Amino acid sequence: MPSNRAVSYQGPGKVTVENIDYPEFELKDGPGVNPANVGRKVPHGAIVKTVATNICGSDQHMVRGRTTAPHGLILGHEITGEVVEVGPGVEFVSVGDLVSVPFNIACGRCRNCKEGKTGICENVNPDRPGSAYGYVDMGGWVGGQAQYVLVPYADWNLLKFPDRDQAMEKILDLTMLTDIFPTGFHGCVTAGVRPGSTVYIAGAGPVGLAAAVSAFLLGAAAVIVGDLNKERLEQARSFGCETVDVSRGEPQDQIEQILGEPEVDCAVDAVGFEARGHGADSGQEQPAAVLNSLMQVTRAGGALGIPGLYVTGDPGAHDEASKQGSLSLRLGLGWAKSLSFTTGQTPVMRYNRWLMQAILHDRVQIAKAVNAVPIPLERAPKGYEDFDQGVASKFVLDPNGMLGTAA
Amino acid sequence: MPSNRAVSYQGPGKVTVENIDYPEFELKDGPGVNPANVGRKVPHGAIVKTVATNICGSDQHMVRGRTTAPHGLILGHEITGEVVEVGPGVEFVSVGDLVSVPFNIACGRCRNCKEGKTGICENVNPDRPGSAYGYVDMGGWVGGQAQYVLVPYADWNLLKFPDRDQAMEKILDLTMLTDIFPTGFHGCVTAGVRPGSTVYIAGAGPVGLAAAVSAFLLGAAAVIVGDLNKERLEQARSFGCETVDVSRGEPQDQIEQILGEPEVDCAVDAVGFEARGHGADSGQEQPAAVLNSLMQVTRAGGALGIPGLYVTGDPGAHDEASKQGSLSLRLGLGWAKSLSFTTGQTPVMRYNRWLMQAILHDRVQIAKAVNAVPIPLERAPKGYEDFDQGVASKFVLDPNGMLGTAA
Amino acid sequence: MPSNRAVSYQGPGKVTVENIDYPEFELKDGPGVNPANVGRKVPHGAIVKTVATNICGSDQHMVRGRTTAPHGLILGHEITGEVVEVGPGVEFVSVGDLVSVPFNIACGRCRNCKEGKTGICENVNPDRPGSAYGYVDMGGWVGGQAQYVLVPYADWNLLKFPDRDQAMEKILDLTMLTDIFPTGFHGCVTAGVRPGSTVYIAGAGPVGLAAAVSAFLLGAAAVIVGDLNKERLEQARSFGCETVDVSRGEPQDQIEQILGEPEVDCAVDAVGFEARGHGADSGQEQPAAVLNSLMQVTRAGGALGIPGLYVTGDPGAHDEASKQGSLSLRLGLGWAKSLSFTTGQTPVMRYNRWLMQAILHDRVQIAKAVNAVPIPLERAPKGYEDFDQGVASKFVLDPNGMLGTAA
Amino acid sequence: MPSNRAVSYQGPGKVTVENIDYPEFELKDGPGVNPANVGRKVPHGAIVKTVATNICGSDQHMVRGRTTAPHGLILGHEITGEVVEVGPGVEFVSVGDLVSVPFNIACGRCRNCKEGKTGICENVNPDRPGSAYGYVDMGGWVGGQAQYVLVPYADWNLLKFPDRDQAMEKILDLTMLTDIFPTGFHGCVTAGVRPGSTVYIAGAGPVGLAAAVSAFLLGAAAVIVGDLNKERLEQARSFGCETVDVSRGEPQDQIEQILGEPEVDCAVDAVGFEARGHGADSGQEQPAAVLNSLMQVTRAGGALGIPGLYVTGDPGAHDEASKQGSLSLRLGLGWAKSLSFTTGQTPVMRYNRWLMQAILHDRVQIAKAVNAVPIPLERAPKGYEDFDQGVASKFVLDPNGMLGTAA
Repeated sequence: MPSNRAVSYQGPGKVTVENIDYPEFELKDGPGVNPANVGRKVPHGAIVKTVATNICGSDQHMVRGRTTAPHGLILGHEITGEVVEVGPGVEFVSVGDLVSVPFNIACGRCRNCKEGKTGICENVNPDRPGSAYGYVDMGGWVGGQAQYVLVPYADWNLLKFPDRDQAMEKILDLTMLTDIFPTGFHGCVTAGVRPGSTVYIAGAGPVGLAAAVSAFLLGAAAVIVGDLNKERLEQARSFGCETVDVSRGEPQDQIEQILGEPEVDCAVDAVGFEARGHGADSGQEQPAAVLNSLMQVTRAGGALGIPGLYVTGDPGAHDEASKQGSLSLRLGLGWAKSLSFTTGQTPVMRYNRWLMQAILHDRVQIAKAVNAVPIPLERAPKGYEDFDQGVASKFVLDPNGMLGTAA
Repeated sequence: MPSNRAVSYQGPGKVTVENIDYPEFELKDGPGVNPANVGRKVPHGAIVKTVATNICGSDQHMVRGRTTAPHGLILGHEITGEVVEVGPGVEFVSVGDLVSVPFNIACGRCRNCKEGKTGICENVNPDRPGSAYGYVDMGGWVGGQAQYVLVPYADWNLLKFPDRDQAMEKILDLTMLTDIFPTGFHGCVTAGVRPGSTVYIAGAGPVGLAAAVSAFLLGAAAVIVGDLNKERLEQARSFGCETVDVSRGEPQDQIEQILGEPEVDCAVDAVGFEARGHGADSGQEQPAAVLNSLMQVTRAGGALGIPGLYVTGDPGAHDEASKQGSLSLRLGLGWAKSLSFTTGQTPVMRYNRWLMQAILHDRVQIAKAVNAVPIPLERAPKGYEDFDQGVASKFVLDPNGMLGTAA
Repeated sequence: MPSNRAVSYQGPGKVTVENIDYPEFELKDGPGVNPANVGRKVPHGAIVKTVATNICGSDQHMVRGRTTAPHGLILGHEITGEVVEVGPGVEFVSVGDLVSVPFNIACGRCRNCKEGKTGICENVNPDRPGSAYGYVDMGGWVGGQAQYVLVPYADWNLLKFPDRDQAMEKILDLTMLTDIFPTGFHGCVTAGVRPGSTVYIAGAGPVGLAAAVSAFLLGAAAVIVGDLNKERLEQARSFGCETVDVSRGEPQDQIEQILGEPEVDCAVDAVGFEARGHGADSGQEQPAAVLNSLMQVTRAGGALGIPGLYVTGDPGAHDEASKQGSLSLRLGLGWAKSLSFTTGQTPVMRYNRWLMQAILHDRVQIAKAVNAVPIPLERAPKGYEDFDQGVASKFVLDPNGMLGTAA
Repeated sequence: MPSNRAVSYQGPGKVTVENIDYPEFELKDGPGVNPANVGRKVPHGAIVKTVATNICGSDQHMVRGRTTAPHGLILGHEITGEVVEVGPGVEFVSVGDLVSVPFNIACGRCRNCKEGKTGICENVNPDRPGSAYGYVDMGGWVGGQAQYVLVPYADWNLLKFPDRDQAMEKILDLTMLTDIFPTGFHGCVTAGVRPGSTVYIAGAGPVGLAAAVSAFLLGAAAVIVGDLNKERLEQARSFGCETVDVSRGEPQDQIEQILGEPEVDCAVDAVGFEARGHGADSGQEQPAAVLNSLMQVTRAGGALGIPGLYVTGDPGAHDEASKQGSLSLRLGLGWAKSLSFTTGQTPVMRYNRWLMQAILHDRVQIAKAVNAVPIPLERAPKGYEDFDQGVASKFVLDPNGMLGTAA
C-alpha cells in the first residue's frame, strides 16, 4: 500500500501535510464526514494518483476560519491524475487513463444530473444538493490535495484526456479544467458573453483571470478586470485585459475612460462574499459591494454571472445580516435595468470537454494567464500563505513529483 | 374636436376625472413631461379612441403616494382601442383598426428594440431606458385612462386584432394583453415554467392571477398562489389553482401539504416592493419578504421570475435602505441552491401576439380568471379605491361607452 | 423461475407469442444480438415485470417486412413495469418500484448521455449511436412485449412513479411515457410550438395524436392533424383538433379554410418514410410527400419537427434512391422560407418526468386521446393486424394480467 | 445632382457600368421592380453615398445566367457608406453618419422583424417574405454597386459606426458586415459552433472563409475548410484553418487524418445549389453533393448550418428535379444521426453590431482572411470575371474613390 501524504486543515491560518489512509472503495468516517455517508460503499469509484491538484480561493475561506470546517479536514477539490484502480462497477474508465476530476461530485443518476446540473446532485451530500471533495458541509468526501484520492461514480465524473503524452505536455493548463476554468467560463456564459460583448469582471484572482480568458474565448470585444490588488491587475493586463483599480473608486468612471461609456454588456462576480469596498472603503469588508457595483456598471438588459461564492452562514462576518448570508442589495436599481442574475456552483461537466478541446488545440493559454506555479505538496502550507497574501499566482501542488518540482 | 375625459392623479389617495386636450401628433408640456420630451414631434403616431383601459396595481403605487408622481398626471398604461387618426409617417396601421397597445413605449429603432427588449427602449424616455404611458419618471407620455390617447411609433407598437367583431366579443380578455397577461406570462417564462412544472406565485392580485393563467397555458402541472387576501385566494381557486394563505406563515409548509414536498420548480414574484411579511408579520411591510420566501421554496436549480415592481427610490419606505431601493436578501441561500433571477419590465411585444392567439382560439379565459369588471370612466375614482382595498377584481374602464357600462 | 411469454417476429406479417428465457444480468446471444454485445454483463440492470407494453408504429415497419429484422426477434420497446430484481451495481432503484422505461437504451456515462442526448448513446449499440429494446440493428437488447425484461443501466434509465396506487389508476396514460408521448412532444418542441402557435401535424396515428396532445399542452392556439384515415381523423377531432383529409388534396387549402391563411407556424412529421401521396396520389407510397408538403404549409421562419422515422436503408422501397434512404426534397423552397428541421430518435428522458407530472396532475388525457386499448399479451398478433389496418387505437399489451384484461 | 455610376447586369456573363438616376425617396419603375412596388414612397429612407460595395457570390448566380434576372438590373447588396440625405420620416440617422447596410431589406414593423427575423420581412417584397438590394425576385430595390443608393427604413436598417476616422481605418473589414461576415457567422451559430467545437466548412469562397473566421471567434478548437480550389484552400490555411481538398475524394478520410476521427461536431454549407461532386465527380454539378457529404461527416447529434443558397427554381440545372429546386438528400442518414438543419437568408441585423465590435476592438481580421481587394467601380466587370474564375479574393468596389483605388 503506497503512502498517502495529504494537506490537512488544522485551524484558522494553519494547514499541514499529513499521512492519511490510502483510499478504499468506501467512504470511511473522519473529520467532516456526514454521518449518513459513513460506510457508504463506492464500487463505482476509481482511485486516482494525483498528478496535479490546485489550491483554490474557496479553500481559503476555510483556512481563514470563515467556515465551520473541522480540524483535520483533508483539503483539495481540483484534482487531475492517473487512474490506478477501479471498483467493480466501473465500465468505461481504465487503469492508466489520465483524467480530469470535476470539483463537483455527482452521481449521474438523479434528476439534476440528468438535466446536466451536476453542481446540485441530489445523491452525494446528505445535507443538501451539491457536493465537492475536501470541503466543509459537502458530505465528507476526502480532499484531493493528496497523493491518492477516491473518485465516486467514476464513469460519470471523469473526463479522460485523449492522449497521455500530449496531456502531460499541457498539464498545467489541463489542471485548470477541474474548477477555475469552467467556473470562470460559467460566469461568462451566464453573464451572456458572446462575440462582440464588453465584459467587466470583478476580481483578478485565478477565477477572475479564468473568466477573462473565457470571455476572450467566447469572442468578447473588450474584457475589463477590476481588483484592489495591483499585482493581479498587472497579471490581467499581461494577456490583453483592460483593468480597473477599484481602490481608486467605483468602476464606472474607469470603465468610461476605457470604453467611452460607463457601462458594459455583461458582468461577472469573481469575488463573492468576502468582498471589500471600493475607493475609500477598500480597506473594509462589504459583502454587497461587488454585486451593487455590478448592477451599476451593467447596461440595461444585461446579465450578471455570479460564480463568486456566497454562503448561507458566515460566522466571521461583521454584522448580523451577513452572518445569515443576507446582503443589502440595490435590487430596485437592478429591476429598473431589467437585469438578470445567475448564481451557484458551476456544473463543471457541462464545459470541461469543450475547454479541454480548446486547450489541446492551442486556442487558450490558461496556465499562463493565471500564472500557474507548480510546487511540491510538502510546500502547500507556504502556498496557502502566499496565496492568502494576494500573490498573483495559481499554485499547483505536485503530490507525486510528476510535475518535476523538487520536493 | 371631441371631448377627452381622463383620469388624473391629484395627490395621495385622490384621483379625479378631468377634461384634457385632445391629442395631437406632438408631446406637449404638462405634468410629469420630461423637459427633453416637450415639443417632440410624433408623425409616426396614431390617435387611439380607447375601448378599454384598465386600472393597474402599479398605478396604485403612485396613487398611494409612494412615488414622486406630480399632481395632474394623467394615469393609465393599459390601453385597447380603435385607431381614429394616423400621422404621416404611419404605413401599416389604418384608421378603423382595433388594436392593443403595449404598456411599454418603444421606438422600434434602437439597439434594445432590435433585440426585442422593448421594456428598455433607449429613445423614448430621456432619463433612462424604458417608458410607459401615464407613469412617473417615464418620459411624460400622456396616460390612456382617457377617451383618446396618442400612441407613438404606431407601426411598431400596435398589435392589430384580425377581426373587429370577434375582438369586440372577447374585449375583456383582449384588454389584458396590454400589460398583466404578458407580465404574468413573462414572470412564468423567466421562472422556467414548462409542461409538468410545479409553480408558486406570490401574490393573487391581477398580475399574480395572470401569471397563474400563464402557468397553466405553459403546461404547468400544479399552480400554487399565495396571498394574505382571502377573497383573492378564492378567485385563484376558481380556475384550478391551489392556494397558500401566507397570513398563516411561511409558504413552505402549506406547499408541502399540497405537493408532498416543500419546494416548487419555479417561482414568480407578483408582489414587488410593497410586500408584507408572512405569518405574524403579515401586518407590516417587509420589502424583501417575498423574494426571501421564494428563495426558500424554490428547489435547487430553479428560477425566480420577478415581474413585481422594485423601485430605485421609495420615499415612503419604513427604513433608509428601502428608501434607496436596497433590500436585505438571503443571497447566500439563493447561491447555495444555484438559483437564477430575472427582473424588469415585461417586453409586452414579445408575447402579446401569442397570447392574443390563445385568447382568440379560446385556449384561455383570462378575463374570468382575473374577474374583469368593466366600469364607466367616470367611476374610476371608486375603482381605484376598491382596488386599493383588495377587492378581487380587475377594473376595466369604459371611456367611450363601448363596453356597455352605464355611466 | 417464472415463465416468460413474449411476442416474436416470425417473418413479414407474422408475429407469435413464445416462451423465452427469463432475463439474467447478461445479454445472451439470440436473434438480432450484435456479436459485440453477446455475453455483455449487466450488473447495473434491473429485471422488470411488465405491467403494460405497447405496440408501436415503428414495430410495424419490421412486421411489414420493411427491414432486415431477423426471425425470432423479440419485439417491444414501450415498457412500463415493476422492478422485481436489481443487479449489484444498482443503487437508487428498488424492488417494488413501479417504473417507466424509456425506449432508448442509454448508458448514462458517455458524452452524448451527459448532454442529455440519450437517443444517441455511444455505449449500448456497437453499430452506431442509439439503441432500443427489441429493434433491428439496435444492438440486440431483448424486447419488452414480454412478461419480464432486462433494463440495463437501471439507475440512469428508469423513471420511478412516486406513488404506486396513483400510478396504477392512470397506468394507461403513464404507459405512453415510454415512447409516443415524449416522441410527439419532441416533435412539437423541435417544431417550435409555444403558446399561441398554429400547428399542423402530419399523421393521425398514435404518435401524431400524441403530438397533438403535446401541442395543446404547450399552449398551441390551433392544432390541425392531417391523415388519409377517416377513423383516425375522427379520433383527432374527439379532443379538439381540427383535421385535414389529405386524400382530398394537399393540405394548404384545407388549412386556409380553418385558419384563414394557408400556413401554420409549426409542423410535425408523425408519418416517416412510409408516407403516401396526397389527393389523387394517396394510394401510392411517396416517401418525400409529407416533408415536401410540410415545407409548403409552414410559414417563413418556421420549423419542422420530424419524429417520424426515416431509415438509412429501405429494401422494400419502390425506387433505388428510397432504398438508400434518399428523398427528393424541395430544399430550395425550404431555404427560401428560412425553415429549420430537426430529425432523430426522441431522447425520452429529457421529457418523461415533465409529462409524468402533467399526467399525474390531470393536465392531459393521453390514453383517451390515442384511444388506448388494453389487450392480453396472447392477443398481440391480432393487435398487430388490426393496427396495421389503421384502426384508431393504441394497443397496450397486458403480459401479467395487471391491467385486468381477460386472457 | 451628382452623377450615379452603377453596375448593371446585361445578360449571362456580362456586366457593365452605367449612369443611372440619382436616388429619390421613392421606388421608381425599372428592370426587375415588382409592379406592386412601383411608385412606393420612401420617406423613411436615407440616401447613402457608397464608400465600399462588394461583389458577392450570390451575384454570380445571376451573372452566370442561373436565374431570371432581367437585363439592366442594377446589382449590389453589400453596401457601406455615408448618409448624405434623409427622408422626413428619419429620426435617428443623420447626414454624415458612416453606416453599414444589411443586405436584407426589412421594414422594422412586421411580425418577422419584431422577432428579429429580418431575412424574411413581410413588407418589402410583394412576392414573398425576404428582400435584398439589386437582386432578382426580391422586390426591385435598386442595387448598391453604385455611387449612391436609397436605403429604406433607414432608422431600422442602418448600423452606424461610432467613430468615422476609426471606421475608415478598418473599412475593408467593416464592409464585410453587410453580408458575408454575418452570413458565415450565422452558418456557424446555426451549426452549433461553440468553444471547443470541431467544425467543417464546405466551401472556401468568401462566405466559407468568413464562416471560418466566425468559427474561431466563437471559440472553435479546430476549423477545417473543404474546397476544390487550391488557391482558396491556401487562403484558408493562411489564418489557421486546416483544409480538405475534395477533389481528392469525400472529406471524411482527410478529416480523420486531421482530427483522428472522421467526424466533426458542426458543419456549415457555404456552397449552395451550384455544388460540384467530390473526388472523381468533381468536374460535374451535383446539387446535393455538399449536403449529403455534410450529413456523413457530422457526428450524431450535430447540426448543419446552411447559409449557402438553395433556390426554388434553377432553370439552368441539369435535371428536372433540380430545376424545381428539389435535391436527392440522404435524409435517412441524417435522421439516424439525429441531425438538425437550418436554412435561409441570414438576418444580418442579429449579428452586425456584435461583429462590428469584434472588428473595432481588433479581435478579428476578416478583410485579411477573405483577401479583400479594393478596385475601382469601373473595373467591376473584370472583378466579376476574376471572381467567377475562382480567384481567392473578395472584391470591394470603390465607387467614390474613398478607398484610394485609382480608377
